[in-house]
Amino acid sequence: ETSATESLGQSSSKGVGVDVEMVSAINIENETFLERNFTAKEIEYCLSRPDPQSSFAGRWSAKEAVVKAVSSFSLNTEKVWTQGAGAGLKEIEIVMAESGAPSVVFSGAAQEAAAKAGVKEIKVSISHSGAYAVAVANAL
Amino acid sequence: ETSATESLGQSSSKGVGVDVEMVSAINIENETFLERNFTAKEIEYCLSRPDPQSSFAGRWSAKEAVVKAVSSFSLNTEKVWTQGAGAGLKEIEIVMAESGAPSVVFSGAAQEAAAKAGVKEIKVSISHSGAYAVAVANAL
Amino acid sequence: ETSATESLGQSSSKGVGVDVEMVSAINIENETFLERNFTAKEIEYCLSRPDPQSSFAGRWSAKEAVVKAVSSFSLNTEKVWTQGAGAGLKEIEIVMAESGAPSVVFSGAAQEAAAKAGVKEIKVSISHSGAYAVAVANAL
Repeated sequence: ETSATESLGQSSSKGVGVDVEMVSAINIENETFLERNFTAKEIEYCLSRPDPQSSFAGRWSAKEAVVKAVSSFSLNTEKVWTQGAGAGLKEIEIVMAESGAPSVVFSGAAQEAAAKAGVKEIKVSISHSGAYAVAVANAL
Repeated sequence: ETSATESLGQSSSKGVGVDVEMVSAINIENETFLERNFTAKEIEYCLSRPDPQSSFAGRWSAKEAVVKAVSSFSLNTEKVWTQGAGAGLKEIEIVMAESGAPSVVFSGAAQEAAAKAGVKEIKVSISHSGAYAVAVANAL
Repeated sequence: ETSATESLGQSSSKGVGVDVEMVSAINIENETFLERNFTAKEIEYCLSRPDPQSSFAGRWSAKEAVVKAVSSFSLNTEKVWTQGAGAGLKEIEIVMAESGAPSVVFSGAAQEAAAKAGVKEIKVSISHSGAYAVAVANAL
């Protein structure tokens, strides 16, 4: 391991995040859970889908992938999400863009954390099939 | 939510796409399905693999991930793939590059859609294990 | 297919890699396997986690995703990993950065391969849920 190796691994101008979730792990009967983690707009959208539980699981994965991408963006800074895995996910809203792709809107502490890390842009994608939902986010 | 937040989420110089598929969802006995979605070269390649069904599922995932990455590239434009999920996937061909990594060759309407969205380059990766295939694409 | 298409698909300034693994495929009772593929630091870390087998599977996925991202970076060069799937993965060490995100440290032949391909930076993210572990890597 040389300093070249280390700079290769630890320079920090981009970030990536992936998250996989079992759809069954998301309890959409639990209103408190939903309201803590999803905006009214997200809840309305997911409930309108053919398979609401998979849609909620996909959005949950997307939020987690975004947290990871922001954490990956600037590796040498302190943890940007210190409130625990479930906290603050409502502040990472997933909306549908005109193109049909999902888009991220930050608010509150999540917005501050992303700005502090130096993130200018987030791209995210979501998929679900069978028992699993997967999302990937790139921080730019 | 401020305009800063929105510009953070909605500026659009890159795109990401992820897709997960159950391998069992791909019916490789259905020749019409295969010929509509895969090129002759792709079919020949997948049939030569140890587990053709997983290989077809992986390529299917890759094509879907590419569609999503192009849609994610330019969020504020109209939907670039309007023909429905299954249409036009044959125009997104997955070939093997010399390095061993998959590479994307666009043709027809898919080529036009990618160009219209402003995409200059696509990178894609594919994996399968057990019951699932997963692919990720980055549009640059 | 025009030359524009081809240059779109085959130019090569970035790379992406994804890998999915069944957690059950990783045999953590096999010390030879562990010592061939994981550093002492990685083994210590994974054994300290609530679910060591999932942690090893996640790190295995991350290493494979890194190999794929490097191969995807420069599509027109010869294969950068020629020793077979399992060889050399110990030289791709996954460490935890201060931010809480995983980071890559190359050594030996893996370091040479990444440098030869022109990779300046790798970002990686890992997730596991239920029976599967997934990782995504971006080569920059």
